Amino acid sequence: MADIRDFDQLPAYSVLKELAEKPYDLASEGALTPERISSCVCQGGGFDLLYATQRIDDAIVDALQDLADQSQAVDRFLQMKKGAVVNSIEGYESENRQVAHTACRDIFNDSPYNNEITDRSQKELAKLKEFLDDLENGRITNSRGEPFTDMIQIGIGGSDLGPRAIYLSLAAHGPRNRRVHFISNVDPDDAASVLDKVDIARTLVNVVSKSGSTLETLTNEELVRDAFVKAGLKPEQHFIAVTGQSSPMDNPARYLRSFYMFDSIGGRYSVTSMVGAVMLGFGLGYDNVIELLRGANSMDVAVEEKKCRKNPALLLALLGIWNHNFLGCETVAILPYSQALSRFTAHLQQCDMESNGKSITRQGRKAVWQTGPIVWGEPGTNGQHAFYQLIHQGTPIVPVEFIGFRKSQHEKDITIKETTSQEKLHANLLAQALALATGQGSVNPNKSFAGNRPSTIIMADKLTPYSMGALMALYEAKIVFQGFMWNINSFDQEGVQLGKVLANRLLDHIIEERNGTDTDESADQTGWALLRAAGLTR
Amino acid sequence: MADIRDFDQLPAYSVLKELAEKPYDLASEGALTPERISSCVCQGGGFDLLYATQRIDDAIVDALQDLADQSQAVDRFLQMKKGAVVNSIEGYESENRQVAHTACRDIFNDSPYNNEITDRSQKELAKLKEFLDDLENGRITNSRGEPFTDMIQIGIGGSDLGPRAIYLSLAAHGPRNRRVHFISNVDPDDAASVLDKVDIARTLVNVVSKSGSTLETLTNEELVRDAFVKAGLKPEQHFIAVTGQSSPMDNPARYLRSFYMFDSIGGRYSVTSMVGAVMLGFGLGYDNVIELLRGANSMDVAVEEKKCRKNPALLLALLGIWNHNFLGCETVAILPYSQALSRFTAHLQQCDMESNGKSITRQGRKAVWQTGPIVWGEPGTNGQHAFYQLIHQGTPIVPVEFIGFRKSQHEKDITIKETTSQEKLHANLLAQALALATGQGSVNPNKSFAGNRPSTIIMADKLTPYSMGALMALYEAKIVFQGFMWNINSFDQEGVQLGKVLANRLLDHIIEERNGTDTDESADQTGWALLRAAGLTR
Repeated sequence: MADIRDFDQLPAYSVLKELAEKPYDLASEGALTPERISSCVCQGGGFDLLYATQRIDDAIVDALQDLADQSQAVDRFLQMKKGAVVNSIEGYESENRQVAHTACRDIFNDSPYNNEITDRSQKELAKLKEFLDDLENGRITNSRGEPFTDMIQIGIGGSDLGPRAIYLSLAAHGPRNRRVHFISNVDPDDAASVLDKVDIARTLVNVVSKSGSTLETLTNEELVRDAFVKAGLKPEQHFIAVTGQSSPMDNPARYLRSFYMFDSIGGRYSVTSMVGAVMLGFGLGYDNVIELLRGANSMDVAVEEKKCRKNPALLLALLGIWNHNFLGCETVAILPYSQALSRFTAHLQQCDMESNGKSITRQGRKAVWQTGPIVWGEPGTNGQHAFYQLIHQGTPIVPVEFIGFRKSQHEKDITIKETTSQEKLHANLLAQALALATGQGSVNPNKSFAGNRPSTIIMADKLTPYSMGALMALYEAKIVFQGFMWNINSFDQEGVQLGKVLANRLLDHIIEERNGTDTDESADQTGWALLRAAGLTR
Repeated sequence: MADIRDFDQLPAYSVLKELAEKPYDLASEGALTPERISSCVCQGGGFDLLYATQRIDDAIVDALQDLADQSQAVDRFLQMKKGAVVNSIEGYESENRQVAHTACRDIFNDSPYNNEITDRSQKELAKLKEFLDDLENGRITNSRGEPFTDMIQIGIGGSDLGPRAIYLSLAAHGPRNRRVHFISNVDPDDAASVLDKVDIARTLVNVVSKSGSTLETLTNEELVRDAFVKAGLKPEQHFIAVTGQSSPMDNPARYLRSFYMFDSIGGRYSVTSMVGAVMLGFGLGYDNVIELLRGANSMDVAVEEKKCRKNPALLLALLGIWNHNFLGCETVAILPYSQALSRFTAHLQQCDMESNGKSITRQGRKAVWQTGPIVWGEPGTNGQHAFYQLIHQGTPIVPVEFIGFRKSQHEKDITIKETTSQEKLHANLLAQALALATGQGSVNPNKSFAGNRPSTIIMADKLTPYSMGALMALYEAKIVFQGFMWNINSFDQEGVQLGKVLANRLLDHIIEERNGTDTDESADQTGWALLRAAGLTR
């Protein structure tokens, strides 16, 4: 692509630097007029973004639009969808891959952008449908001829966080006779507590690892296989695999079924591939999987829009950059007013921080601007009784992204003191945005609120498989747009490698000591000293 | 107390400012010698703090000790324990209360510091023991004469996060025939999904609210009472209360039993009061509650030590201040290498951020230094596959507090490739601290790690009720010490008030609209405009 410039070399950068000296003052009298509130709404993919409570005005949004245009963020997003090799660092060894997560849900039109990946995704979906039908019709059962009631998904990182977050968000939509559980941590207590809860005779185990060699996942798989063998059950009648074609796990002798994931879909973007779909298909039914893909696809299309005022993902990305790079906020809090989204922020922590927690540009130069923020948060109203004190009156400024739904999911609600619980939830969500923005003076300094703490409200009608797909795709696109604007590679994760190398070295020491091997401690004095100080060796 | 100075007026402040210009360089050749590693260990209350991977040297620790001494942090902590009114702002209306959470576990010696509160705590514990015995011996059953198998705790904030975190951390220690569930969020889906899971005929409901007037808690209580009535059950045979004496909830007609909480124990410090004890007593047994208190009390005593090198809470507080106020890090990540601690960081988010997210001093002046940090984190090794990328290679520096245990809790573990899962967990924990500190160069800039990212490793033998109590008390003391040094009131939460007021105003609008009341929108144009923009009113 011609003429990709560094973030701080974009002409809009210096314009925004200047505008940031006088950001919009939300705490001044009359700052939040009804006109401002009704005009600062961006719609797309079934979601409304209310952004009147950001420290922006028209000139600032115009300059942010220029930043987007000058960085060619939307063009590059489109090229990504069409199969460009955007996972790379120019001039250095890197993964050099397409980024194809949007392709695995581009199944609703006849001429998909990335034919090859969409085609392969369709094939996997067809295999999945057949497998689920077989479970449903009793063609696949346990050895006693009983249907499977539970599934344990063993995976970590992208094979855990996204799938788990989406399953929890939609569990209310699934049949009552199916439950899904997750084992991720190499901590043996994680597997033990899950195995305590299920009847393994009626449980499928879905092992998810692209490489087929993830330490935690293989360890937990062996631990769970061991439990099956001890219970007199045959693992190969219970275990299925989601893995890369011809990985060590692609082995019909050990698995009832294998589903494939592709190199061009990174773990943190893989929920809508087989990584999420197999488990969701079991727990929620195949039709709900298709609805999730349909929602994600519709957002993928909506965010091709070039005007940020009509593109919710682009606007979210730009407002994030405004707060992070120009107003100096180091973190962003994502606060869903929906208990079903209790793990969605944990998924976004991975999706965002693993994507954009980078220090070099796509040309291998040091990025001298701030890249990805720290992402954190818990559902409201719970958080209101926890950490909101700091958001209102603490010394750091925390930009907030609120997420809300007009209707509840279960629709089991009652009226107490003239309002329903859902209405109380709404009132609290909006009140927080208002309180943060406007603040309030007081003669008692301890009851005084400075205001000017920015937030965006993200609203949709109801949390369904469709809207969940769209919400997830909204955030994926936000993250990708920010990465393009910061000119970093949002698709690799070299930062996790050093820890792996050092962990293996320490494990070798543990083995050496147990075996009484004649160890030469001088080669790694630091490692040995640390093991000793931690009380983990003599 | 004589001569309390502001944080930036302590003589050590300017010494530390100067030292911060050249913090210890962990990434330089030979920086992490075995001597440094073995000498930077602080022990107390059954925990070891390994802090060689912090950017400190002896001169810096000495200056931090001066900061502690000059702020009289340990003296003030002792006075707090003895009943001083430390929850106050001088010269302004404030809560003006003792802070007595340590007193409710000071039950193991004959002359407790705060006789009155310890005495009242003992009485509540005796009531609890009798209640639990009655459940055990079948003197209290459901209307069919069956024992209760489940408890739902309804509470929010401190009545939810701490109790839930501790219950999850210790569930492995409880009897298999008892389970505890939690409802906190006013989101009606929260209650609906819990009610879906339990047989309410065999369920006790523990409603926890000090004031007896918490919106979310009362709403959820009514929602759950409604479910009991609809099922033909009598709520007064299933509901118990933990509340302030003579609160609206202190009503024997509505509750099987009431247990009292005291004004001088704030929600976020209340796990070891009846707020946590009743539910933990049901779920884990009375003896485990006493063990939890014993562990907390032993840490409360250990942290009376004035020398930070021998006081783990004081050292943790000081290292936090070093990273936050002098090295400019806005957040702290708390990363337990134990899946059972999956919600411990969420508890600390409240305990720390609600305590120290303040902007005025105890004299009502504006604090012109940074107060409490943003606290976040998830268990390792999971986090390694999620957000650690940013911690290693992102642009913000994130100080880390790792928490580990030498033994697993379930002790169900197997050896794979010569090491156990627990050993893999250990190796990963130590490797992360090393990798963050030392970094690693590379000709490929994308594989280069700058290092100098500080961490502390907190180790104990095993996660038990005793060590969990001690760990919780360690963090409570850390937070209190930091508050004393920053000269803020860590015990109130005025920042949550404005949101409540505005939420009620918006709820009134919702009612007005539904009732078709002749509403005067001009009085709150902003509120009405926001409701409209969010699609929540016409």
